[in-house]
Amino acid sequence: MRPARTPHGPRIVALGGGHGLSANLGALRLMSERLTAIVTVADDGGSSGRLRDELGVLPPGDLRMALAALCEENEWGRTWRDVLQHRFVSDGDLDRHAVGNLLIAAVWDILGDTVDGLDWVGRLLGARGRVLPMASVPLTIEADVREEGGGVGIVTGQSHVAVAPGRIEQVRLVPADPPACPDSVAAVEEADWVVLGPGSWFTSVMPHLLVPELAMALHTTRARRCVTLNLAAEAGETEGLTATDHLTVLHQHAPQLRVDVVLADPSSVEDVEQLTRVAGAMGARTVMRQVRVGDGSPRHDTLRLAAAYRDVFDDVLGDVPARG
Amino acid sequence: MRPARTPHGPRIVALGGGHGLSANLGALRLMSERLTAIVTVADDGGSSGRLRDELGVLPPGDLRMALAALCEENEWGRTWRDVLQHRFVSDGDLDRHAVGNLLIAAVWDILGDTVDGLDWVGRLLGARGRVLPMASVPLTIEADVREEGGGVGIVTGQSHVAVAPGRIEQVRLVPADPPACPDSVAAVEEADWVVLGPGSWFTSVMPHLLVPELAMALHTTRARRCVTLNLAAEAGETEGLTATDHLTVLHQHAPQLRVDVVLADPSSVEDVEQLTRVAGAMGARTVMRQVRVGDGSPRHDTLRLAAAYRDVFDDVLGDVPARG
Repeated sequence: MRPARTPHGPRIVALGGGHGLSANLGALRLMSERLTAIVTVADDGGSSGRLRDELGVLPPGDLRMALAALCEENEWGRTWRDVLQHRFVSDGDLDRHAVGNLLIAAVWDILGDTVDGLDWVGRLLGARGRVLPMASVPLTIEADVREEGGGVGIVTGQSHVAVAPGRIEQVRLVPADPPACPDSVAAVEEADWVVLGPGSWFTSVMPHLLVPELAMALHTTRARRCVTLNLAAEAGETEGLTATDHLTVLHQHAPQLRVDVVLADPSSVEDVEQLTRVAGAMGARTVMRQVRVGDGSPRHDTLRLAAAYRDVFDDVLGDVPARG
Repeated sequence: MRPARTPHGPRIVALGGGHGLSANLGALRLMSERLTAIVTVADDGGSSGRLRDELGVLPPGDLRMALAALCEENEWGRTWRDVLQHRFVSDGDLDRHAVGNLLIAAVWDILGDTVDGLDWVGRLLGARGRVLPMASVPLTIEADVREEGGGVGIVTGQSHVAVAPGRIEQVRLVPADPPACPDSVAAVEEADWVVLGPGSWFTSVMPHLLVPELAMALHTTRARRCVTLNLAAEAGETEGLTATDHLTVLHQHAPQLRVDVVLADPSSVEDVEQLTRVAGAMGARTVMRQVRVGDGSPRHDTLRLAAAYRDVFDDVLGDVPARG
């Protein structure tokens, strides 16, 4: 039996960060008006890293990008989205600061409440959905990285982990037991569907499973779970990993996590049977759909990804003949 | 005959800058919904000065303050006003930057049009009226200052002129012939009333008369003109000047300017007859009204000032017995 569709679509929670989450939200917003993004708050580079250092706030960049992806599609929403996404270019102190990062930091300062502040910025954009942080405190990502010589080194900080040469074996959070954002936990508990990925696998997707209360909610929610795989490995962070490797790594970090659907693009899976085996070990069915942009570059196409999610949420999971 | 009051009040243009203009707008907004603020763009200190240097933009601070004074009086308007007025406090690069200054600079960058950008920020605040710059380029104020020894020195830059020891004899703009903002010129031409002051006399009020096209519009408009005097001299800029001295200085800088009303608080005028004489030389009637806050400090009270403007605009100019 198909799950009942409410007039506003299923309650969807999307977990991730950065460009992967933005692309995902662009598709998911077409499928539901009841959308919550739960965003990593471990960035320590660029404008976000500087604000985190200077003001002691959560790194706002990934939150800003998620809000921008949900902006209302009219002149008002697009104008304020462009303003928030704008980066100063100068020879001075403001160079590369994103305006939305500064605005979010200011709203937090005035309202004294992270979630309330994000809701206000969401209202400014006419955002279709909510954006929440995964934790209430800024986090640091730490990784064990197998170096070429065979030894294992520790790399600290998202911006360093993302480009670390060698193979990431394990990621941890510092602090190891950060307080989750209560609204994020509640959103997962009340969701119809939870979507993990796409995005930088170790630094944007998996950190959610390392925040204890959020991980608990992800394990125990009655929502169905979809893992959406990346279209390609990323230089540094996931270099050399196949689609199956991505899923395996997730399974290793959260062996008890049950998944319903693993969504992948046929062109990015080297061995569908192997992927299907690992997915099966997590309880999931593999759904293969063309979700890549037409020029073949490793970016998700909004409409194709939306169509794939429609099939997933509607439980229409048969094979679409994607290639000959 | 009284001028006809439209349903939305007379078309009012208020000229000035800084806190004086803000206080004025707080009162004028109660008297009309058709309000335009024309703001000095010569600031070179603080957050505005830094942005002007770093990004090459008009100094946004006085424009921001005027917009904030016009914000819609509801939760939305007040919240965004507070965000725009917020200043970062840190040990780093952002210290003392006003968020609204950064936002205005960004909107200008994106839209590429000063007036359009200010209108967008006005819409964000639900502003009751428009805020325009007096000129299209950043200006520098230069003053001839009579020093204690008797010699005359040149002081350059608004932030330095404002605190220069000695008596300011003359102010000039650099460049001397800046392009006026065309919308500002049009607003003056189409106004029912033009209000000059209160505000820092040499650096916020008189500069408007030094922008040639704007000065021409102020001289030739069919609008009536009101000069609203300050409640006290300011340390540095107008130290030792009486109310009459303020008006005299204005008259000297723009000898052809005809004025209809000079509005002053009785407690800040040492010699009413003397003031009335100078006002008369400009064609103006002196209107004395209590417009000071109740604690006696030299700040305009919004309601009292609004009531005084009501009398001015309605041509009810008889003496109110203000003191025994």
